[in-house]
Amino acid sequence: MVKDILDANEQIAQRNRNLLDSSNLFAVNLMSSPGAGKTSLILQTIKSLKGKIKIGVIEGDVSSSLDAEVIAKEGVPVVQINTGGGCHLDANMLSTALDNMPLKELKLLLIENVGNLICPAEFTLGEHRKVLVSSIPEGDDKPFKYPLMFHKADAVLINKIDLLPYLNFDTQAFSRVVRGMNEKVEIFPISCATGQGIEEWVSWLLSQTSLQV
Amino acid sequence: MVKDILDANEQIAQRNRNLLDSSNLFAVNLMSSPGAGKTSLILQTIKSLKGKIKIGVIEGDVSSSLDAEVIAKEGVPVVQINTGGGCHLDANMLSTALDNMPLKELKLLLIENVGNLICPAEFTLGEHRKVLVSSIPEGDDKPFKYPLMFHKADAVLINKIDLLPYLNFDTQAFSRVVRGMNEKVEIFPISCATGQGIEEWVSWLLSQTSLQV
Repeated sequence: MVKDILDANEQIAQRNRNLLDSSNLFAVNLMSSPGAGKTSLILQTIKSLKGKIKIGVIEGDVSSSLDAEVIAKEGVPVVQINTGGGCHLDANMLSTALDNMPLKELKLLLIENVGNLICPAEFTLGEHRKVLVSSIPEGDDKPFKYPLMFHKADAVLINKIDLLPYLNFDTQAFSRVVRGMNEKVEIFPISCATGQGIEEWVSWLLSQTSLQV
Repeated sequence: MVKDILDANEQIAQRNRNLLDSSNLFAVNLMSSPGAGKTSLILQTIKSLKGKIKIGVIEGDVSSSLDAEVIAKEGVPVVQINTGGGCHLDANMLSTALDNMPLKELKLLLIENVGNLICPAEFTLGEHRKVLVSSIPEGDDKPFKYPLMFHKADAVLINKIDLLPYLNFDTQAFSRVVRGMNEKVEIFPISCATGQGIEEWVSWLLSQTSLQV
């Protein structure tokens, strides 16, 4: 049964991918624990690319539209998906959200998944890249506990590095473990509070697309 | 189908509860986001009750036995459950773990659920109390996004209050929102790093049982 659900999801994800590709729209699936900083990362990315690249945002949450309201203030198109208890986005939810996006006007689509390190890793949406936002206060043992998420990520951001002086987090050991599980992963230490590392993240993001700024 | 699974879980949970009660063992289901501090809370609780009350621990994780190894060093009986991808503990997993615990020797059982603010709220295990460990770095908007978890908790601990000077978190507003969703909830600001608030938490925990220290 689980296999059937994943197969059906895969088919819809492929349709989403075709739609994105035919619209020349590059999509990134942002995943993390609750409160690791996905929305703050989206805000920093919008700020960095303002006036250069047209961005759209899809916000996934179990409940509430708080994040979509924050993003909408930046003047970018945003669609909120409430899963109503569901612990991850799936391809069908993304399909519905894409129907409500001005696809041809956009170049970059940032999809904020539900805050959860487990289930979102199992459901592809049709995105071009999977990005995991990890954060210093969560601790450096998370790759051992949530291996699939770290294994599947194209990039891992280590957010909240401004808190390093107050917490035990071995960035080098963490990076070594993540690379051991996923040799192609890119790792970026960042702080959405101070802006540190955002330029490197945005440069990598653009390098993955054919977009010029 | 979801209803059938939950019904089946409920029946096994009731059996677990009967076994716990007949063993005079009080069980607490600890839930949180990844890295909010469940293991640190267990360590602080063991330290506080050392030589007074016999404690057992059940550690739930998707993968790894890191937390169980840390707990075992404290000299308390501990059983690790690896869900192998599953995003929550269920009553059947607890039943198997209880078979491997010296129930009659123990008075308090601390069950660390998988780090996830969504699915664990839906699966009762047979526990006497549900405790949610929230933490300052996650942000004060989490009750809006994960309402079921906050609604079901008997107590909410606000951990990592030692980080309050470095982060925006309105403890009063957070507590007001949580009480609006759950009028009987107890709320304890704590720091497992400094020990602040642990005495109040442990006092409440003992007040819920018939245990004397």
